[in-house]
Amino acid sequence: MGIVSFENICQAAARVRPYIHRTPVLTCTALDRMAGASLYFKCENFQRAGAFKYRGACNAVFSLSDDRAKRGVATHSSGNHAGALARAAQVRGIPARVVMPENAPEVKVEAVRGYGAQVIFCEPNLEARETALNRLVEESGAVFVHPYDTPLVIAGQGTAAVELITDAGNLDIVLAPVGGGGLLSGTAISTKTLLPQARVFGTEPKQADDAFRSFRSGVLVPSRNPNTIADGLLTSLGKLTFPLIRQFVDDILTVSEEGIKKAMALIWERMKILVEPSSAVALAAVLEHPEPFRNRRVGIILSGGNVDLKHLPWTGV
Amino acid sequence: MGIVSFENICQAAARVRPYIHRTPVLTCTALDRMAGASLYFKCENFQRAGAFKYRGACNAVFSLSDDRAKRGVATHSSGNHAGALARAAQVRGIPARVVMPENAPEVKVEAVRGYGAQVIFCEPNLEARETALNRLVEESGAVFVHPYDTPLVIAGQGTAAVELITDAGNLDIVLAPVGGGGLLSGTAISTKTLLPQARVFGTEPKQADDAFRSFRSGVLVPSRNPNTIADGLLTSLGKLTFPLIRQFVDDILTVSEEGIKKAMALIWERMKILVEPSSAVALAAVLEHPEPFRNRRVGIILSGGNVDLKHLPWTGV
Repeated sequence: MGIVSFENICQAAARVRPYIHRTPVLTCTALDRMAGASLYFKCENFQRAGAFKYRGACNAVFSLSDDRAKRGVATHSSGNHAGALARAAQVRGIPARVVMPENAPEVKVEAVRGYGAQVIFCEPNLEARETALNRLVEESGAVFVHPYDTPLVIAGQGTAAVELITDAGNLDIVLAPVGGGGLLSGTAISTKTLLPQARVFGTEPKQADDAFRSFRSGVLVPSRNPNTIADGLLTSLGKLTFPLIRQFVDDILTVSEEGIKKAMALIWERMKILVEPSSAVALAAVLEHPEPFRNRRVGIILSGGNVDLKHLPWTGV
Repeated sequence: MGIVSFENICQAAARVRPYIHRTPVLTCTALDRMAGASLYFKCENFQRAGAFKYRGACNAVFSLSDDRAKRGVATHSSGNHAGALARAAQVRGIPARVVMPENAPEVKVEAVRGYGAQVIFCEPNLEARETALNRLVEESGAVFVHPYDTPLVIAGQGTAAVELITDAGNLDIVLAPVGGGGLLSGTAISTKTLLPQARVFGTEPKQADDAFRSFRSGVLVPSRNPNTIADGLLTSLGKLTFPLIRQFVDDILTVSEEGIKKAMALIWERMKILVEPSSAVALAAVLEHPEPFRNRRVGIILSGGNVDLKHLPWTGV
C-alpha cells in the first residue's frame, strides 16, 4: 500500500463532488479508425478552471478545518494548478496566494487574479521561488498546496479515472500524460483497483522525458532542460509520485513534438473540442506506438483545455 | 400552414435518427454571467460532418426511393451543405456530385472528396454554377438537393430545435443564425409549435443583412456584396424560407464583425469547444442587444464547427 490508497481517492470523490464538473467521456469514430482502437476520452478540458487540477486543488482546500482554512492556501505555479487552487479557494471563500515568476505570461497571471488570488512575483528560478513561498507561508500562516507531490492532491486527481471507468466500462488500457506525476499516479491507483487486468501507461514528450528515464532506471532523475510544446509537462516526478508510478504504472511511452502537434490538431478538428498540448500527448502515443493498442478499448485522460488562442502551434501540422 | 409543417419535422426526426448524432445541450456559468441570462447551447458543431446541415441532407437522401436514390444526389455549395450531402450519400451508398467554384479552398474540396463525392469545378459565378449543375443533373439523373430552399431540408434542420427544447425544457427565446434561412425557418416552426409563448429571433451579420432587410421591408431582397467572417451566412433567403420566416420568426437581430469574433473567442475559451464564426452570431446578438434576454432562458443553436485552424480570426479580440 502506497502513501495514497484507493480509499483516499473515494473519499476525495465524495468530498469534491459538489464542486467539480462530472466531465463527459467522448468518443470519435474518425480517431478510432486512425488508431485501430476504441478510444474513450475523459474530457477534463471541460473541468472547472479548465483542467483536472481542479480536482486535487478542491480536495486539498475542502479537507482543511475551518480554522486552518481561514488563513488561506498558497502555492507556486505558473500553470493550471495556480488557477485551480485560486478557484477552489474562491469557492470556499478563503484567501489564495500564488508565487509566479515575473516573466509568467500575462494571460496566466490574469487568470489567477480573475479567481481572486493574490499573485506574488519572484525571479524566474527555483531558489527565488522557494524563498518567496516560504516567506509567504511563514508570514500568512497559509497552507502550502503542492502542485502534485502531496497525498490529497494525488487522491483528487485519481477521481477522474474513477469516473472514466464508471462511464466507459471495461477498458484494456488507460493513458494519462505525466509531468509531476499527480494525475498519472492517481489514475494508476484507481485503474489497478477497479480493473486489475488493465494496463496503465504514462505518456510524455521525448523532450521532457524525466519520468521515462526515472521509470526505466529505477532512480529518480530530474528533467534536463525540458523543452516541449506540452508546457504542462515540464515538471519532474516528485518524491511521492515516483514510487507510486513505479508500483502501479506498466510503462511510460514518449512521443515527438510533431506527434503532439498532430494529435492536438486531430482532436480539435475531429472532436471539435479545445485541448492544450499536454492533453494531446496520450493520443500522440497511441498514434506513434500503435501496436499495444490495436483493437483495444483505451481510456485517455484529456488533461486540460487552457490554451492561448493567439499562439497556436499549427505550423508543421 | 406553410410549405413545411411541424409534422414534417417529426417525420424527419424519425427518418434521420439512426444516422445523426443526438448532440448535447451545454451550459456555461461564465457566459451566463456575462449575458445576464441562462443560455442553452445546442451543439451542432458536434454533428456528423461538423454542422446541422447533416440533418437536412440526411432527410433528403433517406427520403428517396431506392430507384431515385441509385442515380445519386447533386448540389452546388462550397460550404457545410456540400460535406453534409456527400456524407449522407456515402452512408446510403449512393453517388454524390458537388459543383464547386474553381477557387474554393483546397481544405473544403478535400473534405467533400473525403466523403467520397465527385467534385465538379465551375467558374466562380452564379451563372456558371447553375449551368454546371443543370448539365450534371441532366446527364446523371441525380436528384438536386438545394442547400436550404426545399421542404425536406428545412424539415431536417427543424429537428435540432426539437432536441434542444426536449433537453433544455421551457425556453423564453430561441436563437438561430440566418443565411439562406433553412435552419431559422425549421427552428421557428418547431419552437412555435412546442413553445407557443417563446420568441424566435434570427441573428445575422450586419455586413450580410439581407434577411434583416427582407424581414423589415416585407420584400425579399438579395444580399448586396455580403462580406463577413461568418462565411456560412453569405447566402440570401430563398423563396420558401422567406415566407416561413415572416410567418414564424419574431425579429432579426444584426451584429458587428467585432461582436462575432469576440463571441467566437468566448465560446472557444470558456466552453472549450470549436465553433465556426457563423455559430457565434447568436451569442454575439445576446451580448450586443442584451435587453430582451435579461434573466431569460435562451436557447442558442451553435450551427457548426468547421474551421480552418490555420486561419483564425483572433486579431482584434
